Amino acid sequence: MPIRYICLFISILALLQIRSPGIEEPEQSSPDLMPMPRSLVWGQGRLPVDGAFNISLTGHKDPMLQKAAARILHRIQRKTGIPLRASTAADNAKTALEIHCIGAGEAVQSFRADESYSLNVTQKGASLTAPSAVGILRGLETFLQLIVADEKSFCVPAVQISDRPRFCWRGLHIDVSRHWQPVEVIKRNLDAMAAVKMNVMHWHLSDDQGFRVESRRFPKLHLAASDGNYYTQKEIRDVVVYARDRGIRIIPEFDMPGHTTAWFVAYPELASAPGPYTIERSWGVFDPCMDPSSKKLYDFLDSFIDEMTGLFPDEFFHVGGDEVNGKQWSASSRIQAFKAEKNLSDNSALQAYFNQRLQQILERHHRRMIGWDEILHPDLPKSVVVQSWRGHSHLARGVRQGYAGVLSFGYYLDHMRPASYHYGNDPAGKEVAGLTDEEKSLVLGGEACMWAEFVNSDNIESRIWPRTAAIAERLWSPQEIRDVPDMYRRLQFISGELALLGVTHLGNQRNMLQRIAGVQNAASLKALADLLTPGGLSVRVRARKYSSLVPLNRMADAVLPESETARRFGDAVNHLIVRMPERSDDLQQIRASLSAWKDSTVALKSIIGRSFLLEEIGPLADFMRELIDTGLQALDYLEFRQKPPGEWRENAALVVTRAEKQHAEMFIAIAPAIKTLIDAANALP
Amino acid sequence: MPIRYICLFISILALLQIRSPGIEEPEQSSPDLMPMPRSLVWGQGRLPVDGAFNISLTGHKDPMLQKAAARILHRIQRKTGIPLRASTAADNAKTALEIHCIGAGEAVQSFRADESYSLNVTQKGASLTAPSAVGILRGLETFLQLIVADEKSFCVPAVQISDRPRFCWRGLHIDVSRHWQPVEVIKRNLDAMAAVKMNVMHWHLSDDQGFRVESRRFPKLHLAASDGNYYTQKEIRDVVVYARDRGIRIIPEFDMPGHTTAWFVAYPELASAPGPYTIERSWGVFDPCMDPSSKKLYDFLDSFIDEMTGLFPDEFFHVGGDEVNGKQWSASSRIQAFKAEKNLSDNSALQAYFNQRLQQILERHHRRMIGWDEILHPDLPKSVVVQSWRGHSHLARGVRQGYAGVLSFGYYLDHMRPASYHYGNDPAGKEVAGLTDEEKSLVLGGEACMWAEFVNSDNIESRIWPRTAAIAERLWSPQEIRDVPDMYRRLQFISGELALLGVTHLGNQRNMLQRIAGVQNAASLKALADLLTPGGLSVRVRARKYSSLVPLNRMADAVLPESETARRFGDAVNHLIVRMPERSDDLQQIRASLSAWKDSTVALKSIIGRSFLLEEIGPLADFMRELIDTGLQALDYLEFRQKPPGEWRENAALVVTRAEKQHAEMFIAIAPAIKTLIDAANALP
Repeated sequence: MPIRYICLFISILALLQIRSPGIEEPEQSSPDLMPMPRSLVWGQGRLPVDGAFNISLTGHKDPMLQKAAARILHRIQRKTGIPLRASTAADNAKTALEIHCIGAGEAVQSFRADESYSLNVTQKGASLTAPSAVGILRGLETFLQLIVADEKSFCVPAVQISDRPRFCWRGLHIDVSRHWQPVEVIKRNLDAMAAVKMNVMHWHLSDDQGFRVESRRFPKLHLAASDGNYYTQKEIRDVVVYARDRGIRIIPEFDMPGHTTAWFVAYPELASAPGPYTIERSWGVFDPCMDPSSKKLYDFLDSFIDEMTGLFPDEFFHVGGDEVNGKQWSASSRIQAFKAEKNLSDNSALQAYFNQRLQQILERHHRRMIGWDEILHPDLPKSVVVQSWRGHSHLARGVRQGYAGVLSFGYYLDHMRPASYHYGNDPAGKEVAGLTDEEKSLVLGGEACMWAEFVNSDNIESRIWPRTAAIAERLWSPQEIRDVPDMYRRLQFISGELALLGVTHLGNQRNMLQRIAGVQNAASLKALADLLTPGGLSVRVRARKYSSLVPLNRMADAVLPESETARRFGDAVNHLIVRMPERSDDLQQIRASLSAWKDSTVALKSIIGRSFLLEEIGPLADFMRELIDTGLQALDYLEFRQKPPGEWRENAALVVTRAEKQHAEMFIAIAPAIKTLIDAANALP
Repeated sequence: MPIRYICLFISILALLQIRSPGIEEPEQSSPDLMPMPRSLVWGQGRLPVDGAFNISLTGHKDPMLQKAAARILHRIQRKTGIPLRASTAADNAKTALEIHCIGAGEAVQSFRADESYSLNVTQKGASLTAPSAVGILRGLETFLQLIVADEKSFCVPAVQISDRPRFCWRGLHIDVSRHWQPVEVIKRNLDAMAAVKMNVMHWHLSDDQGFRVESRRFPKLHLAASDGNYYTQKEIRDVVVYARDRGIRIIPEFDMPGHTTAWFVAYPELASAPGPYTIERSWGVFDPCMDPSSKKLYDFLDSFIDEMTGLFPDEFFHVGGDEVNGKQWSASSRIQAFKAEKNLSDNSALQAYFNQRLQQILERHHRRMIGWDEILHPDLPKSVVVQSWRGHSHLARGVRQGYAGVLSFGYYLDHMRPASYHYGNDPAGKEVAGLTDEEKSLVLGGEACMWAEFVNSDNIESRIWPRTAAIAERLWSPQEIRDVPDMYRRLQFISGELALLGVTHLGNQRNMLQRIAGVQNAASLKALADLLTPGGLSVRVRARKYSSLVPLNRMADAVLPESETARRFGDAVNHLIVRMPERSDDLQQIRASLSAWKDSTVALKSIIGRSFLLEEIGPLADFMRELIDTGLQALDYLEFRQKPPGEWRENAALVVTRAEKQHAEMFIAIAPAIKTLIDAANALP
């Protein structure tokens, strides 16, 4: 591979500091905590955290607490760099944190678990008290977040915190069927969930694209329908314990009767139409569907569920139930006859029949059913929980009928919306707000959803984190906590905490950019990456024919869902426009940012063409230069308070229109701010 | 914790591209491979690497090879992002790489293992042939490194490679006693070693500061003398297999008779002076030493070695033997009497007596002795190997006496020397070059040494990698391969490959800077960090009183051993000076770099004082501005060809003197280049 010439690059991180113009910053802003506790009162002084720091456990004995204390010591060591030794070995250890657990919690953690805790920190020591172990786990995360470096040492400021969650169901749904996720990815996500006090991991274990659990009773499921990518039963048990140790319930989902192609690859006799079936590689809603008229199906499910309940102790079992198109049912005379015999008016009634049978099986195995919106049917008992992906009105409808519900609408991470969007999405908002208090109490909480059409183990963490921390706060903290700029400040804080935990949401981007541009040029691509965001599901499925066999190794897979750079640039532009013309300093800073970004796209020119993965970046970089030039011209007009000519305005409008479109399945995150500059220039008298 | 004000930072990665002025870059430079193979001939065309890529195994069957093939498929997937399925599941898999292993290798890999391989890549396919499995492992790493993205796809260029190592002993010594390293750190280092074809991990398992292996026969060793930080026997076995799968031998070191305080914490009766002993927390050479006059000692060692040989199958057993100060021996009348009785003239002879006894024990357990320089003594059999930390002359002395040797002098990673220094250090260089061929054949190779006074699990990988890849190349590739700029280009390549493997040498710095400056300001500290290098062992031990209890959480612990930024800046300055005054473009680029760095130190000003960890950065940042200003002034004189006045010259000389000193236990990596600018200005007529 001839390398024609070697260029010397010097990478310089130029830091342009832009002060918020004219804003009086409060002397004491909110603390770096996420989610924010219910009640927090600062005290006087600080508790130092040094090499003598130790933890004592009193009250109810629970091995979970010992493990938690060891983990938190390890994490304090990682956060501070201070070597902490186990208490037995430390010569000079003093108890700085006393943990008092009042009583035994549930044998199997449920959504009724008491997660409250009190944390009291003084200059002399800290005490953490909770009714049960789960509350202690929550309080430990708060304590760890409170550790800061001041001018003397690491320390925790004196504070009194009394905390408990607003909603009892704070979940993350992970689809491991469309793209496989190894156990270590799942564990890192559990670590991150625990750090932001989430308590449900909803594991989407089967779909058209793969069956991901070892079944000893029906081994063809994982052997024939997983490409070898499945969790062994040993791994499942290990993950369940790992989650339990972190106060997280694991709810398995086996989506049925639709989204079941993978089952039929192994056992075509369960389908409504004859096989053979192959693993589905594409994305979408497919026809294959279980045969609700078949006694064999229910026998199979009875045995399968019996096996799975041995692995998953949670009281809930998720049956999916979404997106049944009914085509196989309508095409089958046998099933049509069965419908007629059972007096089932339509396919929806047939699905309800299936759900009733399924619910009876689950009940026999001491499990409560949970499913997506579509399972809602008055014939089902009120013990069933409905997970709403369609909207607040659907959630409200179920609740009015007496079904508890969990909101996922508005928490779809694959839509690539900003954290502020998810943060503003309240399970008790919109239609739900009009319900009675009793009805509202049936709204258990929410679940962020990581559907996996466009994530693999390289980028899944960057799609989930840190945005999901904003959702976690929405579900934990009081409803009144909703200051968006403050949320973003704390989101950056928690993002750093998650990186310390080992989450790869920030770190792995380097590897992905290196893959596209080579290690020598990854830094130059990073400058561009920081100005872009990926298109969401709908953009991408329209852009080209995707499947699970298409590599996710392009720029759109590497750029982060939200651009911190663009957000801050947008803030700076907004301040500038409001304060013009008094703040010419700010104008120069904005000009410097734009110029530097332009330079970085110029630097990219020399490497475009070397790799097929860079091909689509060429036109984008060209257009970025055009857009930035237009922004710089707008700044000139603003600086000299000169109304731009009509021709410029027309051209600028075209540039803006183009800037707002997708480019190589990405969006230009600084486009709105540049539009603001252009609009301001156009508005000059 | 009041946060007084919030500043908006906009981080911009400004990329200033500096072309190598006036240098005609060769059309075809060396390939991105490290270490460079012995023979490489490019062919025509390229072998595409796509979703149908697969591997077949023929010839000698070995489970190691099946595991290796699975690993390499996984790594190709990670390098390219292309989903690769196991051959049984893939519908369209075609064999792109045929592996042919000719015969069975050794049951236990030895230094005599044949590591040669041939790799032949054409447009149609690739074949990898080797006499035994270890050669296949080496060839697979080469194949993986060859994968690049061209304008069409990922591919491997057609090539014929015939390769074998220059030295048979290519090691990395890791001290886990002074600072503990968890198993995952060891495994990542083994992955990295395999990637650069190293074949010995020398595990320094005991020292004054800790005993790191579970001993079932003498459990106080790990229970009393490790602070709980030791490897269980299960973990040891697991690491040994992990290494063996990667063609790496594990040689345990139990340093004796000195560096043995930890043994005596558990069993004071083994020492030459009565106890009790406590775990040593400081660094240095200490008095405690085994009692070579004690029969109990030899019985103990016999039993201990018997137990350890069950864990470590390698034919070698490292006994340390370094830095015995003899004070306890001289102070003991019992030991003096023993010396007299045995006609041992001095403490050195006494140590030789101990080593003879030890060697006899090892021989009974079918192990060969290896030790540091100090064990060299004519009474020891020629089967003993000497590891030279003192220099080539010591290595040569042993070789002349018929002892095989391994060089570690010049490969001490804790001295924080640049990769070029280690790269130039040849085991067959200096005094060794004058030996006969037969004598030279006793030079087995070398070992990089990672002593652990100033590394913990946060930064050990950044201290080892990528510099050790340059050592690996010195030990593997032909002696004639020694082009330093080309090595640095390839070092950056291999650094990226190691990051893909999961090595944290680049990625973890973010966490360490975040700890010092908070996540919001870590980026501004990064700009400064890129201009600094850490002081080596001698600088640091002189700077303050260190021990294993002192946190390694400061800037000196976070900055990388070698500054790529400074190296490139130095190259640019050198080119400028050579080409002056024709290249004023280059001058402007250099000015832009200096100005940007100055801006970044200015940006730091607002955060100094927030954290005690930043306190020492304040004066350093102030001085950096002064140094950079002086450099900018020198540039002005150069640009206008104006001789600087005497006063400026005097001041500049003072600034340079100060710049060359340590600052907060770090060195300013751009100081030499700025000195070059100043010298050039001073030399103006």
